[in-house]
Amino acid sequence: MTTPHSLDQAIALSATGPHTYSGATSPAYGNMVGPFGGVTAATVMQAVMLHPERLGEPISLTVNYAAALADGPFTLTARPVRTNRSTQHWLLEITQPDAKGMPATVLTATAVTAVRRETWSVDDEPMPVVPAPDGVPRANMAPQVAWPRRYAMRFITGAIPERWDGQGDSSLLQMWVRDEPGRVLDFPGLTALADVFYPRVWLRRARPVPTGTVSMTVYFHAGPAQLAATGRGWLLAQARGQVFRNGFFDQTAQLWNEAGLLLATTHQIVYYKE
Amino acid sequence: MTTPHSLDQAIALSATGPHTYSGATSPAYGNMVGPFGGVTAATVMQAVMLHPERLGEPISLTVNYAAALADGPFTLTARPVRTNRSTQHWLLEITQPDAKGMPATVLTATAVTAVRRETWSVDDEPMPVVPAPDGVPRANMAPQVAWPRRYAMRFITGAIPERWDGQGDSSLLQMWVRDEPGRVLDFPGLTALADVFYPRVWLRRARPVPTGTVSMTVYFHAGPAQLAATGRGWLLAQARGQVFRNGFFDQTAQLWNEAGLLLATTHQIVYYKE
Repeated sequence: MTTPHSLDQAIALSATGPHTYSGATSPAYGNMVGPFGGVTAATVMQAVMLHPERLGEPISLTVNYAAALADGPFTLTARPVRTNRSTQHWLLEITQPDAKGMPATVLTATAVTAVRRETWSVDDEPMPVVPAPDGVPRANMAPQVAWPRRYAMRFITGAIPERWDGQGDSSLLQMWVRDEPGRVLDFPGLTALADVFYPRVWLRRARPVPTGTVSMTVYFHAGPAQLAATGRGWLLAQARGQVFRNGFFDQTAQLWNEAGLLLATTHQIVYYKE
Repeated sequence: MTTPHSLDQAIALSATGPHTYSGATSPAYGNMVGPFGGVTAATVMQAVMLHPERLGEPISLTVNYAAALADGPFTLTARPVRTNRSTQHWLLEITQPDAKGMPATVLTATAVTAVRRETWSVDDEPMPVVPAPDGVPRANMAPQVAWPRRYAMRFITGAIPERWDGQGDSSLLQMWVRDEPGRVLDFPGLTALADVFYPRVWLRRARPVPTGTVSMTVYFHAGPAQLAATGRGWLLAQARGQVFRNGFFDQTAQLWNEAGLLLATTHQIVYYKE
C-alpha cells in the first residue's frame, strides 16, 4: 500500500450526511495563518467531485474566503441547488465552531458543472513563447511557510524579489509549476494551482505587505481526459494584476499544459494593507 | 415628479422580510428569453445596496444564472453570512415558483463588501488609446430585443458583424458605452454595464450561435465618489475571449471612465451551442 499524495491527504473528506462532509486542515499546506487558500479551494472542488448527485464536470468555481480558516477540523456542505438537463449549480460552505461553539461561516462558494459536448473550439490566448522547463533554473526559495514546498516552481519572469526595495515596476509572473512530488492532474489539483501565485502586490511594489485573497474564480476549459493526459507534467502559469487601489488588487491568470492547451483561466481579488 | 430612469424601474425591489425582497422583470430590458442578464445582476447588487446591515461598499460580485428567469415577479434573498471588522460576505438567491408552485432557484450569487481605506494605488492596465466618443459613429443597430436600446454604444473595434459568414478572426471588442438616456453611475449601473457585451463567440466566428451566460464575476475598483464623478459620462468597455472550447467560452473585460480610471474588471463563462 502506497502513501497517498500530500494533496490527496489534505483534501480528504468524509461524508457525514447527504450534503455534508468533514475535513481537516493539513500542516503540509500551512500558510502564515491557517492553510494555503488554494488547497481550501481544492477541498471545495473535491466535495463537488465526490458528491453522488453530481452532473457532468466542473465549468466554474468561485470561492469567497470569509474568514481565516483555523487549523483543525471543519464542516463542508455541498448542495446542488439547481439541476438542469446538462448543467448543475452548486452552493457550498465551510463552517467552523465560533467562540460559543456555534457553526460560523468561514467560506462560501458556488460552482457550475456541466455535461460538455464537442463543438467548434479555439484557443485565443496562445501560450507565451518561453524557455522549456529544463532551461529554467529551479527557484531557490527558503519559504517561511510550508505550502510552497509542495510545488516545484521555475520562474521565467517575476520571481520573488531578492531585494524588498520598493522599486518594483511590473506584476507579471510566468513560471513552470507542478505538484512536488508529481501528481496526475485532476480538478482539485488544478484548482489548487490556480492560487499558486505569491501576491502580485509584493512583486509590483517589491514590498511584502500583508495580503489575503478575498474571492477567487476559476474557469475550467479542459475535461478529465485532457487533465489526465497532462499527467505529472509542468504547467505554464501566468499572472498579473490589472489594478491596485485602496486596499484591493485583482489578479488575472492562465494555466497552460506543456502541450500549449489552456486548461484554466482564473481571477481573484485580494486585500492588501497600506 | 420626474419618472425614474428605466434602470431604476427595472431594479426596483420591495422589502418583504429582514432578508427578502420582491421584484419583477422589466420589458424595457427584455432579451431573447427573459431579461438581460446584466439587469438581473444589477438587481442583485441593488439588494446588497438596500440592505440595512450592509458594511462598506461592493468589492466583488459573482452571479450564477442557474435557469432562465421567467418574465414576471421573483423573490430575492440577500443575507450577510459573515461580517468582519472591515469586510462582509453575502449570499444571494433569486427564486421563482416552479410548475408545482414551489420556490425554485433561478440564480445564486455571492458578494463581498468592505470598508475601503486610502492606500498606495496604481492602475496597471492603462486605458487603450482610442478615439474620443465624439469621433466614433453611433452604432447603427436594429436589435431584435429590447435591452440594447437602453444603452448608447459607439464601437471602436469589434462591432456586431455585418455579414455572418463564419470568417471571424478576433473576439476583441472596444466601445464607448453609457446608459440611454444618461444615468449617474452607481454600483447597480456599473454591474449591468459589466454584461453589456454581445456574445464574444458571435464576433470570433462571425456566426450568431445560441449562447447564455452561466456565471459572471465583477470586481469593483472604484468607490461611490468616483462613480458619482463619472456621472453620465461614457465608459470605455473592452472585452475579449481567451478560450472557446466544447460548449463554453470565457470573457475577460474592463471598464474605464473617460478620465481613464479603471472602474471594474469582469469575467464570465458562457455556454454556446455547436
